[in-house]
Amino acid sequence: MIPDILSHGQYETVYNFLSLVIASQLFTAVFLVIALPRILPRYRQAITVAIVVCGIAAYHYFRIFDSFKAAFVTDAVGGTGDYSQAVGAGFNEGYRYVDWLLTVPLLLVELVAVLALVRSVQSALLRRLVPAAALMIILGYPGEISGDNGLRGLFGLLSTIPFAYILFVLFVQLSKSLDQQPSGVRRILSQLRFLLLLSWGVYPIAYLLPLLNISGADAWVFKQVGYSVADILAKAVYAVIIYQVARIKSFDDDPAFARDELSRDEVATRS
Amino acid sequence: MIPDILSHGQYETVYNFLSLVIASQLFTAVFLVIALPRILPRYRQAITVAIVVCGIAAYHYFRIFDSFKAAFVTDAVGGTGDYSQAVGAGFNEGYRYVDWLLTVPLLLVELVAVLALVRSVQSALLRRLVPAAALMIILGYPGEISGDNGLRGLFGLLSTIPFAYILFVLFVQLSKSLDQQPSGVRRILSQLRFLLLLSWGVYPIAYLLPLLNISGADAWVFKQVGYSVADILAKAVYAVIIYQVARIKSFDDDPAFARDELSRDEVATRS
Repeated sequence: MIPDILSHGQYETVYNFLSLVIASQLFTAVFLVIALPRILPRYRQAITVAIVVCGIAAYHYFRIFDSFKAAFVTDAVGGTGDYSQAVGAGFNEGYRYVDWLLTVPLLLVELVAVLALVRSVQSALLRRLVPAAALMIILGYPGEISGDNGLRGLFGLLSTIPFAYILFVLFVQLSKSLDQQPSGVRRILSQLRFLLLLSWGVYPIAYLLPLLNISGADAWVFKQVGYSVADILAKAVYAVIIYQVARIKSFDDDPAFARDELSRDEVATRS
Repeated sequence: MIPDILSHGQYETVYNFLSLVIASQLFTAVFLVIALPRILPRYRQAITVAIVVCGIAAYHYFRIFDSFKAAFVTDAVGGTGDYSQAVGAGFNEGYRYVDWLLTVPLLLVELVAVLALVRSVQSALLRRLVPAAALMIILGYPGEISGDNGLRGLFGLLSTIPFAYILFVLFVQLSKSLDQQPSGVRRILSQLRFLLLLSWGVYPIAYLLPLLNISGADAWVFKQVGYSVADILAKAVYAVIIYQVARIKSFDDDPAFARDELSRDEVATRS
């Protein structure tokens, strides 16, 4: 539930975190657009998807930011400095779910695309991962908008089933494909899966905060901060790591390209 | 007819679907702009048209979104949380028809352009498809703005005649040209026609909802959701599939381009 009152500090915390997410997503997308020619064409599909993911997230955070500013007003004149819910404008948590519905399947497309596996293997992986990701988001939504903690818990639990399936595919089925990757790439990709687990793990924690005994406004503020931090890790930081993978693979594939892109000392270290 | 009252849930549903369409169209256009160099120049006309279609749709959905926000206000003070029609601001359904009048003929231009047929064959197809598409939209409009179910049915029926003609051209006359396409392309194009039939089929269903016995507000909400989903399928998803067709045709036309764009394993699989 959205709290009736936010203290000045609580309001500013949410406000600044939302703005931090906008800056992170927008300029990760800008960075990647500019850096796109500096990987081989065969890895550009992954980075193009990463740009789109960060762009979609930036768009939704602009919406969330505006929705938050409209939802709370301060009783500034002679008041306490607290913010109370504005009449006639509610904070729309739905934007997050629209965002995730689009971006979470695309994050898995990014991961599979950067591996540049044979198309049939890519298709087989995505046919499992993408529907599971969409289902995970869709099952979370009824719990999120419900004021009832029982329903929240139930849908949280249901949503965990496709999440567990995604982890199974990534950590069991994908491992076979990783053996064919260059060793530097294998290490980074392994870290990437743990970043995914770590950052995606923040969402259920933030989701379940209202079920704990943290009082209303604090739980809500922690939830907003949690979702914000998780979105930065899962999209912007993740995209930069995917870019690193694409760079290393580009250098491995084409020594002439590596000579152009790297300093002489660095080329010497590589060989 | 636009309902007088929307419940909080009905309002949020329409609101989030409209925002979902904006994000889908806008970032499909962004994706295609970035990905444009990754097909051969001869197929870029089709993708350029696809970018314009998604851009036009995003523009109109910004308009529809703002029109919707202005058309309903909440009676928050001690109220029920319901939204009622604002005095002096109506929801403008006309934006959809302006959008379709521009984009639907262009969707057919996209489809014909990606086939890269002989110019005289392209012209012959478009001389049939484009006027039929425009006529279909124009004939639907009087029924849409009419409050009278008889008029709605009549114009719906009239609008179906050019729709049937378009399907005849795509499924009977186009089939001859498809035989000359590479087999992978033939399969995708065949699927594409069914996506077109499926997604275009949603419009008449949404259009006719007010004629069924679904009560006012629900019918209207379903209609907005139906139009939104159909627009995502018919423009954004359709554009991504057209892009896939252009990629496959590029690789078939130019093996050196395929070697640059695909991983070594994938090139081996193709030959």
